[in-house]
Amino acid sequence: MPLAPGGAAASPWAPVADREQQREAKRQAVLQAAAQLFNERGFHATSLDDIAARLNVSKPTLYYYVKSKDEILLQCVRQGLQMMREGIEASRAAGGQALDQLLACMHVYARIVMQDFGMCLIRVGDEQVPPESRKELRRLKSEIDQAFRRLVAAGVAEGSLQPCDPKMTAFVIAGALSWIGRWYRPDGPCTPDEVAQQCIDPLLQGVLRRTAAQPAIKRTRRGPLASRR
Amino acid sequence: MPLAPGGAAASPWAPVADREQQREAKRQAVLQAAAQLFNERGFHATSLDDIAARLNVSKPTLYYYVKSKDEILLQCVRQGLQMMREGIEASRAAGGQALDQLLACMHVYARIVMQDFGMCLIRVGDEQVPPESRKELRRLKSEIDQAFRRLVAAGVAEGSLQPCDPKMTAFVIAGALSWIGRWYRPDGPCTPDEVAQQCIDPLLQGVLRRTAAQPAIKRTRRGPLASRR
Repeated sequence: MPLAPGGAAASPWAPVADREQQREAKRQAVLQAAAQLFNERGFHATSLDDIAARLNVSKPTLYYYVKSKDEILLQCVRQGLQMMREGIEASRAAGGQALDQLLACMHVYARIVMQDFGMCLIRVGDEQVPPESRKELRRLKSEIDQAFRRLVAAGVAEGSLQPCDPKMTAFVIAGALSWIGRWYRPDGPCTPDEVAQQCIDPLLQGVLRRTAAQPAIKRTRRGPLASRR
Repeated sequence: MPLAPGGAAASPWAPVADREQQREAKRQAVLQAAAQLFNERGFHATSLDDIAARLNVSKPTLYYYVKSKDEILLQCVRQGLQMMREGIEASRAAGGQALDQLLACMHVYARIVMQDFGMCLIRVGDEQVPPESRKELRRLKSEIDQAFRRLVAAGVAEGSLQPCDPKMTAFVIAGALSWIGRWYRPDGPCTPDEVAQQCIDPLLQGVLRRTAAQPAIKRTRRGPLASRR
């Protein structure tokens, strides 16, 4: 047995703090593998055996880190939401115009739905989370939604955004960006930043072409939908 | 027993054609009740007993119309897709500029995701559909996606839409409109047409305010994301 500095026999066990860190890293690996499988196959089609197999461990080993598949899902979705909340908070804390903050939040949101936990949040419906946790998740989701609405409203107030219903506009933004989590493949041709930018641009600029001679707003009024407004 | 015209004894059974029509109407009622329950509670949390209870019939009665819960889901999602395909086809057949056709398709899409089968299509993930049917559903979804991409590309070509990557723009449109199926409540303050219009407007016009002095495209370049392009 090697001698520790000072001459005492070194323990073959790592110090407690290291072990706790390792345990947390392993717990995180369980959640990550689970999120990937949920995203690939769906929550109900994924078993604890599948998760264990992907990590090259036995199912009993998993139980050292998590209680159940339901708990895993909850933790995955909670982490996705937590990442979004922190990202949005940081974007807002960075200050600047409401428009700058909104742009930063849009990028954060888009990038997170391309990652395992964020994708899980988008792909797994609320109703798959255990009922007792649904309320907490809805509250967290609602906070994110409210943050977007406030930024849109502030953008309208500062004159950088079109006058609009902030609730609807926030839904349009969240919908277009959330959808990335449904279609995005990490092996696709674009980097996550490129995907984010290519989805954010049409939201900012609109899909209609505008020219000085033919402003877009007039063009729509001439469209088939004019009578509905 | 009453006499039928001509004097023969009238049968207490309806004519075959009527009975088939009634059977189809009842089958449709089963699918509709199921779609509503899937949307409210999620597919896995809904049992055949729940569906039977909502229709005031017994579970064995359901089996006269459908084989299994899996088959019901498949039929619901298939009907949602079929409605979209027909709506998009009709919008395109109506002719006009690509922009007019795209607008009509956007309205069709938005209105369908606010209905039971369309909402089911959005809320239930592909991976919940039985594996042997997934391919067919993906093919139908891809057709709809391709129709949007073609219209966006045609709109760019005719000069009515901003130059863009039609694939990404189609995803942004489909995402924002699909999202309606996640948050829309029929008892909300807006009619489906109002919701559709309020979601389509920001997509068309963009969220940025444009003035002659400060065109939106310049505004973004001055934003925090300029270096990423």
